[in-house]
Amino acid sequence: MAESNENLQMEKIVSLCKRRGFVFQSSEIYGGINGFWDYGPLGAELKRNVKELWWNAMTRQREDVAGLEATIIMSPAIWKASGHVDTFSDPMCDCKKCKKRFRADQLCEDQGLTLIKTAAGKYELPAGTKCTSCDSKELTEPRPFNLMFQTYVGPAATEADIAYLRPETAQAIFAQFKNVLETSRQRVPFGIAQVGKAFRNEVTPRNFTFRSREFEQMELEFFIKPDEVIEAIHGAVATVPATGHPGEPQPNWGWQAWHQYWVEERVRFYEGIGLSRATLGFHIQTKEELAHYARACVDILFKFPFSKKDENGNVKGDELEGIAARSDFDLSQHQRFSGKPMGVFDEELRAVWAKLPKEKQDDLWKRYYDNRKNYLTKCAKPDETPEQISQQATDDANGLAKGQYIPHVIEPSAGVDRLILALIANAYSEETKTDDKGKSETSVTMKFHPRVAPFKAGIFPLLKNKPELVKKALEVRDLLRPWMNVFYDETGSIGKRYARQDEAGTPFCVTIDFDTLGEKPELLDTVTIRHRDDSKQERVKISELLDFLLSKIR
Amino acid sequence: MAESNENLQMEKIVSLCKRRGFVFQSSEIYGGINGFWDYGPLGAELKRNVKELWWNAMTRQREDVAGLEATIIMSPAIWKASGHVDTFSDPMCDCKKCKKRFRADQLCEDQGLTLIKTAAGKYELPAGTKCTSCDSKELTEPRPFNLMFQTYVGPAATEADIAYLRPETAQAIFAQFKNVLETSRQRVPFGIAQVGKAFRNEVTPRNFTFRSREFEQMELEFFIKPDEVIEAIHGAVATVPATGHPGEPQPNWGWQAWHQYWVEERVRFYEGIGLSRATLGFHIQTKEELAHYARACVDILFKFPFSKKDENGNVKGDELEGIAARSDFDLSQHQRFSGKPMGVFDEELRAVWAKLPKEKQDDLWKRYYDNRKNYLTKCAKPDETPEQISQQATDDANGLAKGQYIPHVIEPSAGVDRLILALIANAYSEETKTDDKGKSETSVTMKFHPRVAPFKAGIFPLLKNKPELVKKALEVRDLLRPWMNVFYDETGSIGKRYARQDEAGTPFCVTIDFDTLGEKPELLDTVTIRHRDDSKQERVKISELLDFLLSKIR
Repeated sequence: MAESNENLQMEKIVSLCKRRGFVFQSSEIYGGINGFWDYGPLGAELKRNVKELWWNAMTRQREDVAGLEATIIMSPAIWKASGHVDTFSDPMCDCKKCKKRFRADQLCEDQGLTLIKTAAGKYELPAGTKCTSCDSKELTEPRPFNLMFQTYVGPAATEADIAYLRPETAQAIFAQFKNVLETSRQRVPFGIAQVGKAFRNEVTPRNFTFRSREFEQMELEFFIKPDEVIEAIHGAVATVPATGHPGEPQPNWGWQAWHQYWVEERVRFYEGIGLSRATLGFHIQTKEELAHYARACVDILFKFPFSKKDENGNVKGDELEGIAARSDFDLSQHQRFSGKPMGVFDEELRAVWAKLPKEKQDDLWKRYYDNRKNYLTKCAKPDETPEQISQQATDDANGLAKGQYIPHVIEPSAGVDRLILALIANAYSEETKTDDKGKSETSVTMKFHPRVAPFKAGIFPLLKNKPELVKKALEVRDLLRPWMNVFYDETGSIGKRYARQDEAGTPFCVTIDFDTLGEKPELLDTVTIRHRDDSKQERVKISELLDFLLSKIR
Repeated sequence: MAESNENLQMEKIVSLCKRRGFVFQSSEIYGGINGFWDYGPLGAELKRNVKELWWNAMTRQREDVAGLEATIIMSPAIWKASGHVDTFSDPMCDCKKCKKRFRADQLCEDQGLTLIKTAAGKYELPAGTKCTSCDSKELTEPRPFNLMFQTYVGPAATEADIAYLRPETAQAIFAQFKNVLETSRQRVPFGIAQVGKAFRNEVTPRNFTFRSREFEQMELEFFIKPDEVIEAIHGAVATVPATGHPGEPQPNWGWQAWHQYWVEERVRFYEGIGLSRATLGFHIQTKEELAHYARACVDILFKFPFSKKDENGNVKGDELEGIAARSDFDLSQHQRFSGKPMGVFDEELRAVWAKLPKEKQDDLWKRYYDNRKNYLTKCAKPDETPEQISQQATDDANGLAKGQYIPHVIEPSAGVDRLILALIANAYSEETKTDDKGKSETSVTMKFHPRVAPFKAGIFPLLKNKPELVKKALEVRDLLRPWMNVFYDETGSIGKRYARQDEAGTPFCVTIDFDTLGEKPELLDTVTIRHRDDSKQERVKISELLDFLLSKIR
């Protein structure tokens, strides 16, 4: 029962999205293409608003973040360095009889079985696994299926011309780290932000736009000093309260403070566009879940209608954004694979180091060395010997005395389409009214935060056949339009026009009536503002209208 | 000499782009990838501004345009309908001996030869064509090389799973025409606007970012009534002056007026962001150049440093945007290939038609029929017979009486990256000053229009070691920052800080000095604004600063 309610809720949302032009199936007239979704007029505006707010909050309103807009197709070497070519895959197997292809873990699950992971990191089908299509037990051994879309660049389609559609936007930021650092007058700690499309050839796209094959990301890579460097310069790494926002960034923050800061900043962002803490969930990745190089990762979840209940019947939610502390893994990988130095020089560190007591130097040196050796060992290339690794770690740690280090990174990485779906699910509100004759009608109101709403105001002349009203209404429209997206509507009753804007999620409707024209002299040049969420109305002077609305939508 | 000057000019521009973070080579640390470019912090802001201004001008500031944001990967059926699968190609040939691959037309040109186009539309190498790499004359016959990047969607990489990266954004608009029409309360004439990435596997990417393999487009498809429908409803199609802006759209405009309107609107757009008419060129496509379905196409050109001179020594320019009158070709193709009706119903046409004199009906019917038959014949599928085509054209023309027709379209299609390069080339300005000691120094000022400039204002405390100045400067920064992108800078002399902002193209620099703090009481709470282009300075009250700047940048 509960589950069918949730399905029903998703069905209603999908139906509204299509009916009002938030989301359409891509290539619908050709039967669609699985895992691809288009944004219609309202959806495109909603998405633009969200991306613009993120960009503003993350770059323009901060001193310490610079923007980047990189290409989707990059050198394939980037994906070797990042590990995506080797490991970004799902296990696949084929039925030898009917030739059908399956995701091996799902094929097992569908039969109440569990895919076996061998000690060597390979996969095996458990005994008895059958093809769910033709019942044959002749299945190929599972083999990795890489999720990157592949293409060829240039006229010759050889091995050497293979390229990939980026599966994430982050790597371009690492690859361009030095270029940005050198041109933007930034110093560590600072971040590089990017918004853009990414592609994953998901075997099973699902949950509407939540898991699609083409999607958009908003990613920040925030580069910080390693804790050893903080300790060298400031004597100690700052301790911050274990929960809550740690406040304005401080020079002596280590990675934990920065990680906590970004988790809380991102929650504030979601609150600021209408997702209250109650609608969100959190998942702190366990040591087992974390990538070997990651020190911590907190996922911010939203409770979608399709989100599953846990054993206690609580909805945990599905991921909107992950905030990961990724150590110096990414820059280190690109340094090793490209042969280009990705470290930075810090004059303060160099000056301070010389004055540190020998024991302190040794202690910091040893910890930095251990971290580097640990990374270098885990990510060793096949031809690297333990001696080479120790030598490299020694060189790296010796760099401290020269003011050199490789920055660590905190990565708040958000999915735009998931956020849009969360905003739509959160805004969706139904009301059923029964009239005198017992006839009931259900109306939908999309209660978007005014900051993200596709249209900020509907502008209505009371009657369309009164030229004075229309003229005045168009004046009001032209007063507001340079500052916000408005919808002018003169057809149908005012009630109908309200209902249309309620479905579009327009927070304010402005009606120009005879009082505006001075029928009641004291109301000359005033308009009625009707609020979407409580239907309350108020009278506002036209001369104060722009400021009134700006104060609500910004 | 002239040409090397132009090369030098491009070199300077490319160098500045890298040095100041406008444009970087994609994947530079891995040796780059030919035909792909990233936008650094300044470039990303410049590009965002341009796209935002386009979107505002084309959708939010208009009643008659709705937005769309579709996927890059769409159903491959779309590219069959559009003709891209069959004909979007360059002729290629291989050397049988050394296996090198060439673009056949360029291979011929390099040897002073001309590729032969046969009557059947195929290509042949002229006698004597050699491989320019190994001199062998054993070359394969030229065959078409499709410029669409190809990939596979889903886990099985079969023929049926082939998909393409869109080579243009336009087709998604046609494919979603009905969905948008039905959800956006628009009626013909109206447009659908989209901004987004497109990909073409160019054999020879060149001229910096001008011809790259991954690029961004800003496209509007503006749907209009066919002239026969205008004539039925309004008696005649409006005549408009042959040149200049035809003014506010009128109900009786035919395709020529709409085409001229959009050309002039687009020129106004370019003028509004700093590209004067003198920097632009125009190319009116000849009948031979036009696609068979197109009625007219005007290209708006910009005179780039690399643009070639014509026989009279005049620079014509290279294309920024094409404005094409594409008849009803696109919607017709998708109707035929998808089997979904793409026509519209027009109550006014239906009502009016019944009252038209028989001769008028016959005249309009015949012209509409001829147009449809012409299209259907030229675009016939192999299995379509002349009888079927005549029957279809008859059915289409009979639709007029029922108020049905397929809209025509005017398409202003602009390239974002080309425009960015034009803005950079246009803004680039050098000044060489020689000091008393005879030492000369060249400085660069990027004279961007304030609307597109990455930063709108630099905010400087006169001295960084005076906390009162810094505090006040930060207050000014925080006053402006919610409304515009500003750059706070406290290091170096004011002159150096000006120079930095000149190179970034920041139109205004605001200095907070001791007078701001009241050293001269009459100047309390005023600041100095220095104008980038003429270095003039003026004193403005802080309370009036925001309005002053907003009036310049909007």
